[in-house]
Amino acid sequence: MGEKIPVAVLGATGSVGQRFVQLLSNHPWFQVAALTGSDRSSGMSYAEACHWVLSEPMPEEARELVLTPSDADLMDVKLAFSALPAKAALEVEPYLADSGVIVCSNASAYRTAEDVPILLPEVNPEHVALLDVQQRKRGWKGGIVTNSNCTITGVSIVLKALQEAFGVKRLFAVSMQALSGAGYPGVSAMDIADNVIPYIQDEEDKVETEPLKILGTFADGRIIPAGIKISAHTNRVAVSDGHTVCLSVELEERATPEEAGVVLGEFTLAEGIRGLPSAPRPPIMVRSEADRPQPRLDRMAGDGMTTVVGRLRPDLIFDLRIVVLSHNTIRGAAGGSIYNAELLVTQGLLER
Amino acid sequence: MGEKIPVAVLGATGSVGQRFVQLLSNHPWFQVAALTGSDRSSGMSYAEACHWVLSEPMPEEARELVLTPSDADLMDVKLAFSALPAKAALEVEPYLADSGVIVCSNASAYRTAEDVPILLPEVNPEHVALLDVQQRKRGWKGGIVTNSNCTITGVSIVLKALQEAFGVKRLFAVSMQALSGAGYPGVSAMDIADNVIPYIQDEEDKVETEPLKILGTFADGRIIPAGIKISAHTNRVAVSDGHTVCLSVELEERATPEEAGVVLGEFTLAEGIRGLPSAPRPPIMVRSEADRPQPRLDRMAGDGMTTVVGRLRPDLIFDLRIVVLSHNTIRGAAGGSIYNAELLVTQGLLER
Amino acid sequence: MGEKIPVAVLGATGSVGQRFVQLLSNHPWFQVAALTGSDRSSGMSYAEACHWVLSEPMPEEARELVLTPSDADLMDVKLAFSALPAKAALEVEPYLADSGVIVCSNASAYRTAEDVPILLPEVNPEHVALLDVQQRKRGWKGGIVTNSNCTITGVSIVLKALQEAFGVKRLFAVSMQALSGAGYPGVSAMDIADNVIPYIQDEEDKVETEPLKILGTFADGRIIPAGIKISAHTNRVAVSDGHTVCLSVELEERATPEEAGVVLGEFTLAEGIRGLPSAPRPPIMVRSEADRPQPRLDRMAGDGMTTVVGRLRPDLIFDLRIVVLSHNTIRGAAGGSIYNAELLVTQGLLER
Amino acid sequence: MGEKIPVAVLGATGSVGQRFVQLLSNHPWFQVAALTGSDRSSGMSYAEACHWVLSEPMPEEARELVLTPSDADLMDVKLAFSALPAKAALEVEPYLADSGVIVCSNASAYRTAEDVPILLPEVNPEHVALLDVQQRKRGWKGGIVTNSNCTITGVSIVLKALQEAFGVKRLFAVSMQALSGAGYPGVSAMDIADNVIPYIQDEEDKVETEPLKILGTFADGRIIPAGIKISAHTNRVAVSDGHTVCLSVELEERATPEEAGVVLGEFTLAEGIRGLPSAPRPPIMVRSEADRPQPRLDRMAGDGMTTVVGRLRPDLIFDLRIVVLSHNTIRGAAGGSIYNAELLVTQGLLER
Repeated sequence: MGEKIPVAVLGATGSVGQRFVQLLSNHPWFQVAALTGSDRSSGMSYAEACHWVLSEPMPEEARELVLTPSDADLMDVKLAFSALPAKAALEVEPYLADSGVIVCSNASAYRTAEDVPILLPEVNPEHVALLDVQQRKRGWKGGIVTNSNCTITGVSIVLKALQEAFGVKRLFAVSMQALSGAGYPGVSAMDIADNVIPYIQDEEDKVETEPLKILGTFADGRIIPAGIKISAHTNRVAVSDGHTVCLSVELEERATPEEAGVVLGEFTLAEGIRGLPSAPRPPIMVRSEADRPQPRLDRMAGDGMTTVVGRLRPDLIFDLRIVVLSHNTIRGAAGGSIYNAELLVTQGLLER
Repeated sequence: MGEKIPVAVLGATGSVGQRFVQLLSNHPWFQVAALTGSDRSSGMSYAEACHWVLSEPMPEEARELVLTPSDADLMDVKLAFSALPAKAALEVEPYLADSGVIVCSNASAYRTAEDVPILLPEVNPEHVALLDVQQRKRGWKGGIVTNSNCTITGVSIVLKALQEAFGVKRLFAVSMQALSGAGYPGVSAMDIADNVIPYIQDEEDKVETEPLKILGTFADGRIIPAGIKISAHTNRVAVSDGHTVCLSVELEERATPEEAGVVLGEFTLAEGIRGLPSAPRPPIMVRSEADRPQPRLDRMAGDGMTTVVGRLRPDLIFDLRIVVLSHNTIRGAAGGSIYNAELLVTQGLLER
Repeated sequence: MGEKIPVAVLGATGSVGQRFVQLLSNHPWFQVAALTGSDRSSGMSYAEACHWVLSEPMPEEARELVLTPSDADLMDVKLAFSALPAKAALEVEPYLADSGVIVCSNASAYRTAEDVPILLPEVNPEHVALLDVQQRKRGWKGGIVTNSNCTITGVSIVLKALQEAFGVKRLFAVSMQALSGAGYPGVSAMDIADNVIPYIQDEEDKVETEPLKILGTFADGRIIPAGIKISAHTNRVAVSDGHTVCLSVELEERATPEEAGVVLGEFTLAEGIRGLPSAPRPPIMVRSEADRPQPRLDRMAGDGMTTVVGRLRPDLIFDLRIVVLSHNTIRGAAGGSIYNAELLVTQGLLER
Repeated sequence: MGEKIPVAVLGATGSVGQRFVQLLSNHPWFQVAALTGSDRSSGMSYAEACHWVLSEPMPEEARELVLTPSDADLMDVKLAFSALPAKAALEVEPYLADSGVIVCSNASAYRTAEDVPILLPEVNPEHVALLDVQQRKRGWKGGIVTNSNCTITGVSIVLKALQEAFGVKRLFAVSMQALSGAGYPGVSAMDIADNVIPYIQDEEDKVETEPLKILGTFADGRIIPAGIKISAHTNRVAVSDGHTVCLSVELEERATPEEAGVVLGEFTLAEGIRGLPSAPRPPIMVRSEADRPQPRLDRMAGDGMTTVVGRLRPDLIFDLRIVVLSHNTIRGAAGGSIYNAELLVTQGLLER
């Protein structure tokens, strides 16, 4: 690919922003050329401005980059990764899209917009076509592509595999979510010590609606949502990284846990996707032990990009019980966004 | 009541045994007269033999009691609380029952026996009548009364209130269970540090079946199980005490969360039960905050005997979503057993 | 005492403020008559304004009290407990003292002032006399009495006992401090999950200097600091409540661990102090087990007011190694302040 | 080096044994050829017998290896890594040493033996010469080389650097140790939840004595212990991996924290050691932030082999305060043993 593509990270000092910077270090295609931060931090070096919270060290090449405001011109940068809070994303992302930048966003601000895809390469690569719709409709030279809520990423991939094989009608989903999902400083240690918090603001709504769009069909320039019904409970637990979700799934066509296990284990990526640098290897890992997946042991499967499932067993009301785990700040946030960008690159969308 | 009733605690050195000893200290009706332990510990004083794990101190009056083997004669003691492991309970409990002792047991060994009640005074005080059946059928002078699995205790009380008001058809139940539920030493700290374990041996089966018996109807000398269908996922989380359960409930008759909240908040105990020393005050506490109940904040409600519920909201598939919390070693184990014994005392069952 | 004394809690919505409100509920001498909060919360009811974080429920009688600004006139209230942040304390406390209020303060703002005592009834009840100095010098009708930093409270009591018996020359102190010591929201859960933070801002300086004043001699209207040298390391660990401190102590006169144990266990309070409602019973508890004290098991000794020590053993460099534990928000903050106020009441200082 | 050297891991199913297997996977010089386990597990495949607790997956090539008893003949294997419990090590290690195997042991059984080195390549590579003494004295064809207690590894490296530059006289060391140091299942989750345990059996004695031997001088066939005095407190905290130690150090020659920082940061390995596959890069990392090192953020520095120090500041009693962190199962156990074996290989000790 010759020279690397210069990219920006918007909102680079927060916990997802840090994950972008860490994952982009040594990326074979991309190179961080710009970092943006709040007004308070702009003008400071990244090393100065950022309270680094990841266990991997801050990449050397990022330390001396100077933070610019998030609404600044990014000059030659044509690809930006957004870790902005929803409110800032609402203004900054369309501004950049208008000026020709493709924004791969982890923010929820535009996920519900009709012409903005929630892209998951394993599930709906054809939704990339919404970018055309977006550019036509909004007169943008660039565009916005989002990735899904961190809780629903692994779940959507599992649903895709089951939907193709058996059809999916309804599901109950109960999550036990990691602390890093709340950003930094996020949850107070006093609130979660020796505790569970059975509530995460706005989260259940996202879990109940985003998969319908993600699993929807693209036709006539728009997405027809999948006909699945979801009921969700979302909980915060004292885990650093890795969201665990208990699923009870009702299928169109009955299937045994063994049959479902085969389908999940054999789920493969389309050819053009399999070779992307961030493509999960394997896409879904099926654990056969009685007590897996577990966040501490399984979140880094496939470098944090693989969806790990286990405890496949029958359900007394629906058909299948499954436990799904995925890394919320890698697969479910920064890593997912980078993976999306890789797909856009191979489809020539950055060369216009 | 004049003099206190002498009681024994079987398996007194384990974590539930310790809870029995702690709760029986200063009990208005009962006085610990005998403690039993394993062969290894028998002959030792309780203070010597027991690695005390509760944050309340070991009661002074228990320190010097000498442990006897669990299958020893308990002499004048007519009431025993069993914290035995299931396997030991299988042999010891009927032996004592045969010799005239009423055993209030936290063990699961006899919960599925047709003629042994799983007694919950809030829910099924009439099941006490099974003791007669038991004595007739087995020729015992005493008997065995069990309390339910710790995860299902609070859930069964909530179901009782909803069943009376609206009827209950089906429910999904996903638990996040405390460490003390696994006994001592139980879970390894290395397994639960920064982790969730989505598996507890045999637990889901208990959650799916015990409530049917508890909520069943006593007629013609036996219990006709309730016609409810339950699907369960059970998980271990890094919480010391207090089991949290997410419920999605399908009712016979539709009800709004507000209506359900009123029914739960107004749930009252039968008159003969309300005055028992361990009766929860209130039986059910309905929290209106968005993020309650939480184990650290709510487990000690009503001295650990109250069932705390919150997050009442509609369910996209069934009718209601509710979060239920109860203290697993007080309400769900030792405290529940003592409460059962109090009920038996008021019904004259110890005086035969 | 006839009618209860009306008191105010300044900064009532923070974590120490909440502890004041909780401990003052049902206090035999005091009754909460006023609560103050930030500008944002003033005018709201306490139940509305306060995110309650204690596991004990919010006292019913406090729920409907309306918050006033911290610099408001407290009218008839002559006794105020201050849980203000240091900066606010700097202005508000002298303002109230000037207007005739006795302020028992947990803030660090005036601890280093020459004429303000750091009062610990076990250690230096005679330092109360500084109030006279204060009133004379500053022209106040009321005054300020502080309690010590939470880490040093238990340590100072232990040092007092050892100083009286053997003399104390130097000590190394390494703390492992609870989350509640940082206030609310305080430490981010992401920072402390699976972690230790070997740093607490300004804390080591307080540990090295406050005990010298506390253990100092009152003479000629001022305090002559004790001639003890302290070196401190302070650390934050994932514990909700209870500070643990490892001490290596050099004595004037050699003593064995056994001799020290006897001295600590027999440490008694002066007669006028022993009967105060908050006086710890016992003042020092000496645990003989190899692995105590532990925060979860020992912090509530004496209702959270007792200092618990253990692991008395020789030191290869100095004389004694000891582990000291005390509850940081009860003994080391709100409870200590209330105890101080009780002492002031018995000395007639509120009746002027 | 042509073909890889076949090695055995003794006690391969425990937590340190697992770490050996994980670190030896893809080692450039060594290949696991034999795994030993308890009688219970011998004959089973490693995948069957081992409850894997590391977050890195079990290496594929180890899964099907069949466990043999620990006292079995290891045939052609001339190098064994011992993760045996102390008691088993006492018998098995000399048996193998006698039969020609070089045993690099993490067990404490022979650390105090006069002719057995506690080898730390950064500190005392010349102690390898004790192997000759050992073989002569005991008539062994192989030998035993131990690595130090996990808590003292990083501390000894820091002391070496300070000793060379300034001389070290006395130190206070207070540790906060990770759960993995207790093996598996090790600490009960109920004991450490919301808690600190200020006691680790036999640990303080090791911390006070092992560094004297490690830093000792080899002369006339024996080690003359270093003349340093250490006083230690050891504590268990709720951290998965990484031991943190607070040090107060008295030097022969006064030095400022800045001077000490330069000496520690510039500490370099001898030429023959620098190139070993497991040599830490850098040997010591000096962090300048106010709140580092921290176990979660710093334990994996240099792939878990680097000693991380920070918080260099003056000491009011001695000269320097320092916080030292090292990974207890990598640098302080399996990784250290492998590093030792690499040194032995370069010195031709496996070719006799």
